Amino acid sequence: MLPQALVALSLFLSAVQPASALWPQPRQITTDQTALKLSPGFDIKLTGIHNAPKDLTDAVSRTSSFLRKDKLEALVVDRGASSAKVVKAAKSLKALRVSLTGDSKTVKSISEEATLPLESRSESYTLTIPADGSDATLQANSTLGLFRGLTTFEQIWYELDGNTYTLQAPFDIVDSPAYPYRGLMLDTARNFFPVEDIKRTLDAMSWAKINTFHWHVVDSQSFPLQIPGFMELSQTAAYNSRAVYSPADVKDVVSYAAARGIDVIAEIDTPGHTAAIAKSHPEHIACPEASPWTQFANEPPAGQLRLANEQTTKFTSSLLTSAASLFKSHYFGTGGDEINLNCYAKDEQTQAELTAQNKTIDSALDAFTQASHKALKAVGKTPVVWEGKQTSLKNPHKYSSTSTEMLLVHPVTLDPETLVLVWISADNVKSVVDKGFKVIHAANDYFYLDCGGGGWVGQNVLGNSWCDPFKTWQKAYSFDPLANLTPDQHHLVQGGQHLLWTEQSSPSNLDSTVWPRAATSAEVFWSGPGGDVGAALPRLHDLAYRYKQRGVRAISLQPEWCALRPGKCDLNA
Amino acid sequence: MLPQALVALSLFLSAVQPASALWPQPRQITTDQTALKLSPGFDIKLTGIHNAPKDLTDAVSRTSSFLRKDKLEALVVDRGASSAKVVKAAKSLKALRVSLTGDSKTVKSISEEATLPLESRSESYTLTIPADGSDATLQANSTLGLFRGLTTFEQIWYELDGNTYTLQAPFDIVDSPAYPYRGLMLDTARNFFPVEDIKRTLDAMSWAKINTFHWHVVDSQSFPLQIPGFMELSQTAAYNSRAVYSPADVKDVVSYAAARGIDVIAEIDTPGHTAAIAKSHPEHIACPEASPWTQFANEPPAGQLRLANEQTTKFTSSLLTSAASLFKSHYFGTGGDEINLNCYAKDEQTQAELTAQNKTIDSALDAFTQASHKALKAVGKTPVVWEGKQTSLKNPHKYSSTSTEMLLVHPVTLDPETLVLVWISADNVKSVVDKGFKVIHAANDYFYLDCGGGGWVGQNVLGNSWCDPFKTWQKAYSFDPLANLTPDQHHLVQGGQHLLWTEQSSPSNLDSTVWPRAATSAEVFWSGPGGDVGAALPRLHDLAYRYKQRGVRAISLQPEWCALRPGKCDLNA
Repeated sequence: MLPQALVALSLFLSAVQPASALWPQPRQITTDQTALKLSPGFDIKLTGIHNAPKDLTDAVSRTSSFLRKDKLEALVVDRGASSAKVVKAAKSLKALRVSLTGDSKTVKSISEEATLPLESRSESYTLTIPADGSDATLQANSTLGLFRGLTTFEQIWYELDGNTYTLQAPFDIVDSPAYPYRGLMLDTARNFFPVEDIKRTLDAMSWAKINTFHWHVVDSQSFPLQIPGFMELSQTAAYNSRAVYSPADVKDVVSYAAARGIDVIAEIDTPGHTAAIAKSHPEHIACPEASPWTQFANEPPAGQLRLANEQTTKFTSSLLTSAASLFKSHYFGTGGDEINLNCYAKDEQTQAELTAQNKTIDSALDAFTQASHKALKAVGKTPVVWEGKQTSLKNPHKYSSTSTEMLLVHPVTLDPETLVLVWISADNVKSVVDKGFKVIHAANDYFYLDCGGGGWVGQNVLGNSWCDPFKTWQKAYSFDPLANLTPDQHHLVQGGQHLLWTEQSSPSNLDSTVWPRAATSAEVFWSGPGGDVGAALPRLHDLAYRYKQRGVRAISLQPEWCALRPGKCDLNA
Repeated sequence: MLPQALVALSLFLSAVQPASALWPQPRQITTDQTALKLSPGFDIKLTGIHNAPKDLTDAVSRTSSFLRKDKLEALVVDRGASSAKVVKAAKSLKALRVSLTGDSKTVKSISEEATLPLESRSESYTLTIPADGSDATLQANSTLGLFRGLTTFEQIWYELDGNTYTLQAPFDIVDSPAYPYRGLMLDTARNFFPVEDIKRTLDAMSWAKINTFHWHVVDSQSFPLQIPGFMELSQTAAYNSRAVYSPADVKDVVSYAAARGIDVIAEIDTPGHTAAIAKSHPEHIACPEASPWTQFANEPPAGQLRLANEQTTKFTSSLLTSAASLFKSHYFGTGGDEINLNCYAKDEQTQAELTAQNKTIDSALDAFTQASHKALKAVGKTPVVWEGKQTSLKNPHKYSSTSTEMLLVHPVTLDPETLVLVWISADNVKSVVDKGFKVIHAANDYFYLDCGGGGWVGQNVLGNSWCDPFKTWQKAYSFDPLANLTPDQHHLVQGGQHLLWTEQSSPSNLDSTVWPRAATSAEVFWSGPGGDVGAALPRLHDLAYRYKQRGVRAISLQPEWCALRPGKCDLNA
């Protein structure tokens, strides 16, 4: 970690003289203005790494491929043409030497490093690119750190007349993330996403150094996950027999992600958001598809696990542990959001069970949650939960105001290691941290990618999205992860993420809804907050244009006229 | 045209018992519940059409191809599986017989029919599909009408176990549009769209019977149109040498569109929105790229034609007529929106010219407009203009409040044949119609596809789109084209359109921003207004799913759970 003053200084300098189009901005970077190009025989050499892990050599191959194929022209009016002479005369870089610091006898793969507990990962690296043509060097104390450095190296170069060049050598970069968790959540239950779309998203995430894919894999609308021992769930509640993730698919996604420095935290939301389970196990579900749904759930269809039933509690624990076994991650999401009290009030069985056990909903929820969390911990998983306070009328989630949240309203006992996703409002973070929990920032008022897309509930002519307006990249970029917290609470903030709920999203608009917006939280939680929106914009353009070169349909943030003229389209330009 | 009562009746009946997933809904349709499938040797036969135009036989081939390749499963929970027996036992349809009514000696091509003046086109057709397996018939008095009927025929069929079937035979359809103009506007100047993206959009438009591509081809940010005699404009102000539309490209787009029943109305906005011209003709442009742009234009860069200069006026007329010669259409857009008065006030040359000619801005604008319109009329083109009233503070377009509009503020003399696009507010239609002009509905408060996408101007952290919120398909669908008008004014309403300004759009999000939303105005202006949003939704899902089958990235309007269960996700379900 850099001293805060030096970080602030480097951010300030980069704002005055944008050093490069790197995204996220490295924590410490110095550059100058010498042209340098890649030699035709440019090579990336792993030096001193015996038995280099395959995912590291694969990563090197991908970097080499991007260097050849990106062919991104500089985002200036003439797309670099006026630099032709300078580039032609520039020195050539022949090699990037990649090496590990520390004990090279115990080299872990990127995949192993990426799936360690958050506190055990090292993503730091140093990258030096001299201006005189002598070899560049990339060093780290982990293969994961080397991978992050390769990602940075890829972003340095532009294309002109067959040359791959920079005008800003030399580079001296010392980099490490400000926060250990930088994520993206995708809901694959409201609408289904084939594995190829997920993989393309994982690639794009890795290019912005996002290290967690939070996979909201099932929900009330569909259950695409095939879980050993629970195949009837996907058989009856997947949208169709092709809209499923088999154990082989999951393994594929998990290993593809891990090789790109990404941990996959899957989530099976409980006890709410479980209507799909009623298709094969009606005995476990209260108020399945009850009507009118507005009284029983925040969105259709209604249906919640019978939290006071012993068999349902066992079923849930068994389901979660079996599902968790498909994933490498140390973490697994159990949900806990939007529990509809009316659903349980109207479920005669649940009411009878509460009475028989002399329990309230609160104590039943506590017991239910503790049972499933205990089961997950027994198989080595740390739970991840959604938290918030009771939905206020001012900000009703979706269309109902009868839902509630676990942690802040009900006295649910959670292990202090539990990761708590704060989604209803960034203002709730303080209350969660005050209870001593680790938090992941996931506030809808900053990071929900689906807000502002219009209302989707039928027969609601003048409706718009429940969390209007659209959450701009600028809003996300202005987020302060430490707002209202005391210095001794700062360590509880693990990071944050953008999120895509997919009531109105599908493969058709996945890329365009996510990119480049989701890269802004990646920078907030890697580089640290406080960056200037105006200084960030040219770099974000650069990232978006590079994504397009790589086949990810990132949107245009401005007319190209503006993208080629930094600052000219600022409000006061 | 059907008597109004019968139209109303048929809409009412279809709401009670959705007859089919046709979009736009035919004006008159009766169906029943007999299964029918296409024979393996199903054929579309042109009968009695000697020397059938190539664009008609091509259209028949495309229909045959869609019938084979759509492979759309019915949007019901089991995707049609429970109908397997019924479909297997269904009668087979061997042929669709296609014929022209009236004088077959003077058969015009679809392309000729589609580019006639609005009042001269006939798009009506009758389509009969018996349930007993006897041949279906499609009749019209124009090839354009036949093409519309083919488009309807394509939407009738679903796929199951290799069968292409309907459960709703017989069909009796008598159809014709409520309004002659149903359009889509695309701005190709803020960001560039390759011809292939335009062609895909034209295909998608034709599937919803949209008949006008309003091509806002150039603007202040870039000038991609190559115009004979004015090649310097695109040479200096296209984004790059590949981001241009050559005369051959234009011919390609125009003929591709016409063959699909679409007239291409191009637009070169004047006198505002012309900064790009300053790159090659600085002598014609006032306040080019003036700073701060907020004082000189509604968005960057500033720059307007020197409307009081004789040479500039001649240049403009010549430019417009040369550009218009590239297009078949009888119409050509000359703009007229967002004229910035401060730009002219600060331009010493314009002020000197006004003084010398003893003109006000109003009288200069009148003379300038009349000159270019006269030139266009001399080459057979009817002008299309943007109109509105002075931008109010309540609804400032983009970020400036100093702009004004031609017709309602300035006493500009326009030919009564001029088509007037009303964009600032649907409330302005009445004032334009009161002046006796023909109007095209293009209100931003209903039809702007770019609203709600976030603010794009730099250094505006909390900004959102100027026309927030997002304009939902439901809002567009609820539009009343005749609001506030007297019966004797109804004939002045020519139709309407959705519009995509592309400050934040590019090929990455073209399809997902436009479809299926833009199909809602297509139905309002084909079927007539007053349709029920709840009854429309299942049909709109069907259209969107069919678009996806055809390679157009239409978005999901709801979770698939809802799409397969009509009504279940309504607000009060």
